[in-house]
Amino acid sequence: MIVIMKSEAGTREIDAVLQRLNEMGLSGHLSRGVERTIIGVVGQTFPELKEMLNALEYVEDVVPISKPFKLASREFQPEDTIIQVGNVRIGGPEIVVMAGPCAIESEDQLMDTARAVKAAGATILRAGAFKPSTSPYNFRGLGKEGLELLAEARKQTGLPVITEVLTPADVELVAQYADILQIGTRNMQNFVLLEEAGRTNKPVMLKRGMSATLQEWLLSAEYILARGNGQVMLCERGIRTFETYTRNTMDVAAIPAIAKLSHLPIIADPSHAAGRWSLVSPLALASIAAGADGLIIEVHPSPDHALKDGAQSLNFENFGRLLPQAESVAAAVGRRLAKPTVTI
Amino acid sequence: MIVIMKSEAGTREIDAVLQRLNEMGLSGHLSRGVERTIIGVVGQTFPELKEMLNALEYVEDVVPISKPFKLASREFQPEDTIIQVGNVRIGGPEIVVMAGPCAIESEDQLMDTARAVKAAGATILRAGAFKPSTSPYNFRGLGKEGLELLAEARKQTGLPVITEVLTPADVELVAQYADILQIGTRNMQNFVLLEEAGRTNKPVMLKRGMSATLQEWLLSAEYILARGNGQVMLCERGIRTFETYTRNTMDVAAIPAIAKLSHLPIIADPSHAAGRWSLVSPLALASIAAGADGLIIEVHPSPDHALKDGAQSLNFENFGRLLPQAESVAAAVGRRLAKPTVTI
Amino acid sequence: MIVIMKSEAGTREIDAVLQRLNEMGLSGHLSRGVERTIIGVVGQTFPELKEMLNALEYVEDVVPISKPFKLASREFQPEDTIIQVGNVRIGGPEIVVMAGPCAIESEDQLMDTARAVKAAGATILRAGAFKPSTSPYNFRGLGKEGLELLAEARKQTGLPVITEVLTPADVELVAQYADILQIGTRNMQNFVLLEEAGRTNKPVMLKRGMSATLQEWLLSAEYILARGNGQVMLCERGIRTFETYTRNTMDVAAIPAIAKLSHLPIIADPSHAAGRWSLVSPLALASIAAGADGLIIEVHPSPDHALKDGAQSLNFENFGRLLPQAESVAAAVGRRLAKPTVTI
Amino acid sequence: MIVIMKSEAGTREIDAVLQRLNEMGLSGHLSRGVERTIIGVVGQTFPELKEMLNALEYVEDVVPISKPFKLASREFQPEDTIIQVGNVRIGGPEIVVMAGPCAIESEDQLMDTARAVKAAGATILRAGAFKPSTSPYNFRGLGKEGLELLAEARKQTGLPVITEVLTPADVELVAQYADILQIGTRNMQNFVLLEEAGRTNKPVMLKRGMSATLQEWLLSAEYILARGNGQVMLCERGIRTFETYTRNTMDVAAIPAIAKLSHLPIIADPSHAAGRWSLVSPLALASIAAGADGLIIEVHPSPDHALKDGAQSLNFENFGRLLPQAESVAAAVGRRLAKPTVTI
Repeated sequence: MIVIMKSEAGTREIDAVLQRLNEMGLSGHLSRGVERTIIGVVGQTFPELKEMLNALEYVEDVVPISKPFKLASREFQPEDTIIQVGNVRIGGPEIVVMAGPCAIESEDQLMDTARAVKAAGATILRAGAFKPSTSPYNFRGLGKEGLELLAEARKQTGLPVITEVLTPADVELVAQYADILQIGTRNMQNFVLLEEAGRTNKPVMLKRGMSATLQEWLLSAEYILARGNGQVMLCERGIRTFETYTRNTMDVAAIPAIAKLSHLPIIADPSHAAGRWSLVSPLALASIAAGADGLIIEVHPSPDHALKDGAQSLNFENFGRLLPQAESVAAAVGRRLAKPTVTI
Repeated sequence: MIVIMKSEAGTREIDAVLQRLNEMGLSGHLSRGVERTIIGVVGQTFPELKEMLNALEYVEDVVPISKPFKLASREFQPEDTIIQVGNVRIGGPEIVVMAGPCAIESEDQLMDTARAVKAAGATILRAGAFKPSTSPYNFRGLGKEGLELLAEARKQTGLPVITEVLTPADVELVAQYADILQIGTRNMQNFVLLEEAGRTNKPVMLKRGMSATLQEWLLSAEYILARGNGQVMLCERGIRTFETYTRNTMDVAAIPAIAKLSHLPIIADPSHAAGRWSLVSPLALASIAAGADGLIIEVHPSPDHALKDGAQSLNFENFGRLLPQAESVAAAVGRRLAKPTVTI
Repeated sequence: MIVIMKSEAGTREIDAVLQRLNEMGLSGHLSRGVERTIIGVVGQTFPELKEMLNALEYVEDVVPISKPFKLASREFQPEDTIIQVGNVRIGGPEIVVMAGPCAIESEDQLMDTARAVKAAGATILRAGAFKPSTSPYNFRGLGKEGLELLAEARKQTGLPVITEVLTPADVELVAQYADILQIGTRNMQNFVLLEEAGRTNKPVMLKRGMSATLQEWLLSAEYILARGNGQVMLCERGIRTFETYTRNTMDVAAIPAIAKLSHLPIIADPSHAAGRWSLVSPLALASIAAGADGLIIEVHPSPDHALKDGAQSLNFENFGRLLPQAESVAAAVGRRLAKPTVTI
Repeated sequence: MIVIMKSEAGTREIDAVLQRLNEMGLSGHLSRGVERTIIGVVGQTFPELKEMLNALEYVEDVVPISKPFKLASREFQPEDTIIQVGNVRIGGPEIVVMAGPCAIESEDQLMDTARAVKAAGATILRAGAFKPSTSPYNFRGLGKEGLELLAEARKQTGLPVITEVLTPADVELVAQYADILQIGTRNMQNFVLLEEAGRTNKPVMLKRGMSATLQEWLLSAEYILARGNGQVMLCERGIRTFETYTRNTMDVAAIPAIAKLSHLPIIADPSHAAGRWSLVSPLALASIAAGADGLIIEVHPSPDHALKDGAQSLNFENFGRLLPQAESVAAAVGRRLAKPTVTI
């Protein structure tokens, strides 16, 4: 950490910083420039230090020189994390396609979709039993009944399932049914939930918060990792900007950026980014080209009858058309789509 | 709700929309223009309807014509909600000042601050026992011990206390100690937490999410109201934008906008908006001038020794200087600061 | 255009709107709902109308139902615009690669780069003679001397050239040298410059403003088209958001969105979006997968000696590695890279 | 400037940076930490240096330690700049109120408004003759005829006038009529226009760009100052964010922040920030409380008949009600409104 002093800081003010560092068991290395003095902090720094030093009157700025996340960083673990889910390996050379309805609405809807996405080439089934909803008056999912349908769909198709958990008290229940726990965008900084997920032995997919920086996102992953669960994958689903044509703005650069900063697999969710089904396929292909390790896509038997997210859901036909294109783009960047597990 | 059809939509496509409406027990009122047809939806609409209709192929756009929140709206309740906390009334002609340290660090730090802010004119004591933290390695509060210190501070000063609750499981505990439950910016859409707070009989201060629109914020308030707890106040604490000079961008227009849209009291948090103590006082005064019903301000005996948020905390002297100015600005807009309860 | 009245609007207030419409030679088609009345505007509307009607006291909202841009819209011209530049056709099945240094620094730097990008497979040379600069103290380009070097580079390599024009007074001069006029992000709403470019017969590449919506961008294109110059291509170069890891946030969804809304070719600028050379190639490939008609990429013989944008410039080796990958991704989405003109 | 090396940088990579600095006549001061090495740059740095050093392979980050603007900074000139316009002094203890219609529409409209705002207590008349417009099909002002009407309004009321100049070629013309040249938000980085305004001897009001940081804004002011025109005032008019309830988000913290960073006067434009007349007065009062040196407000005789910005214009009655409140808030922060010049 480097402390940049204000130009008007004199010996007394610089000494105050050095003394404050000493109080905390650290020391400072002075570098006096023409315009101002810079103090390099020597010793074991900690995250609050930046804020603490910033509070000192003659400090102009404090610049951290190491990243605040550790376990999630490439420096800590240079090789890619690979997460095994059933027969599927996430984070390796193969690209995994997760697909299914936004919300579980009925047995028929779920089973039809599960079979259709499997037939098209998806390798993991996604579907929500507990749904976050902006309004208290909206449909919020079938809950436990949904989880049971999900287990049944896995049994019938052999596809592992991913589903969202909304609150710490549900983690144990959801973990009994799900192969991957999903933590949604509104919960990216629900730290108690992150820790609870960190205590399970289930893979976790952590969606990026709507207005989270890459660093905040990786720090949230760090919460899970720090509890001993190393099976974390990240999911870019678009960020909130001034543009209203799309539901969110897919930050496609986050895909290679995360791959650079971290060893954790990175998945793309073009459905929530786009908010319009007609843009889902181009965004899915773009994500693969940018280096995504997987896709998570909303598919519904009849999007115009969906209880949730119909406008951004692909029907079976459009999803079926996307997969061969995805395969081609994957090949162009030296990868291939993971194949569905042999049918049971 | 109005459905705007694409210009290329013909009779068949329009009929498909009408039929879909019929399936849901609604009907449509056609308005054929030169360029395109518009369908007014007749019947009891519901929030998912917009998304559902948007999913239809020849629908260009769906425009809701009523607000999605009800209990929180001025239409539902024209007169201001006034929340009684001890002797203080929030939302009436008086402006309430809540002040105290970001986090409770020790008995001395808390008691000294409580006495100082009371002496300066604050009417409610703020202090965090459970602290959300971006990094798992940062200080996260004293927990239950902090709550007990808070109760002691209330006893000694007579000031009611506000403190944050982070997770549903803690609501009952925190409600035993706090006079006002605070729900933080990262939890604005933690719907389970909102509902849990809605089941208590404690006033709740709901901070605006970092990237929440006014409508989303009011819908989150609606979650609490819909559970039967009508004592909700809102808190503007700055939103996330591209500007990095301040920690957040205080959306001062949200103050009069909320007062227009809703009957709930609106509090301003200049400390988190600014992120720099030197900007806290101007933002506090601006908030009062814009119509805020209260302020919540971080004050610390020695900001450069604070474990959290030191850079944005006022010391006793600066806080003491702010209050008379706040009183003057309040008077200029026809209000006055609430006075602290008589000392015990 | 639809006028949504406030719920408290009575007959008198509705009549006031109808009368105002009559004053402007329009009429209104009433639709009385349970909660509120809606007025469809009948007649030839115009862009100011929305604002005008919004100013009326009992108007809740005004919803335009046609797009404000015409000449730029797919409805107006369903088939793709194809722009011929030398032997290159932009907007057809081939994807054009424009490459070169951010700024022209010297004859050697420009000629070396021109030859290198041509050898690698670029079809158009980009290089700036007039450079916008945030600070008045920075390098601002070689001006006319740069244009002459550019003409010389074109002569030696046969590559058409694209270069920026900063101000209306320079349009004539720049148009004498350039094959494509570039209008930069800070000038997207420099309407006098747009019109001046619209008066030339040169193709124009219009970069998206840093915080421009798709609609504003297309309206800026409309300025050029309305002056009679139909050869406009758009360029997505990233928008400004809260994320600071990248220089801008590439809005990759803008690529298929523009293709849907407009017939104009859409080019991607991964260099300015990323701001870091290591992210340029993934973003370039993502853009092609999303449907871009071309790329514009900064290449420099020695990025660490560049006077401008070195951090986001590819060196010859990295650029050379990108093109075959771009060719593969193009093939995966059914397209191919345009080939450089035969050497003169 | 400080260069932070990557942790993996060894002696060779550090030497490469030192050598590069030497090439540019600079030297480096090494500071080897446990994790990484930091190099302080010694010598006369320049703005491009940051980018140049960032381009070096083993450089992690480059941190400037001085502000890139000089003439605009408080360090350069500690005392406030005061700009004399007629009898009005901008930037001193008095707060100046500029008011008038968005666009000049007719002689009657302008004269009526000029008289009304003067009667209410405004000291400067604002009105647009050249109007920027998002769409090429909208009203764009009366041009020179408007300037002549403006001169007539000044003659009749004695109020100095402020009006916008859109393009460098018009600067001379507009400067013949205007007492203050206004440069609009879309032109904040129209550098040629800034320099042209810098060559006049007229005061300039520079509006903040829609997505400009404080630093970029001050650098744009620097363009004008560097050409020898020291009479620059800045105008906060809201920035673009995700919130759509208001037209822009007024960054009220920019007011005290600019006052801290710079000696230039800072004006607030609540009309463009709000985009709704009902929020204009609260934002105006908030701006004064935050320390603004002036207000610029849109006033129209009949906002619902305005050709532009009717929805955000105050009518005479509402403007008349605002001024006494503004006077009270000004007094509360130790200032007063400037009084209109004695009538001619």
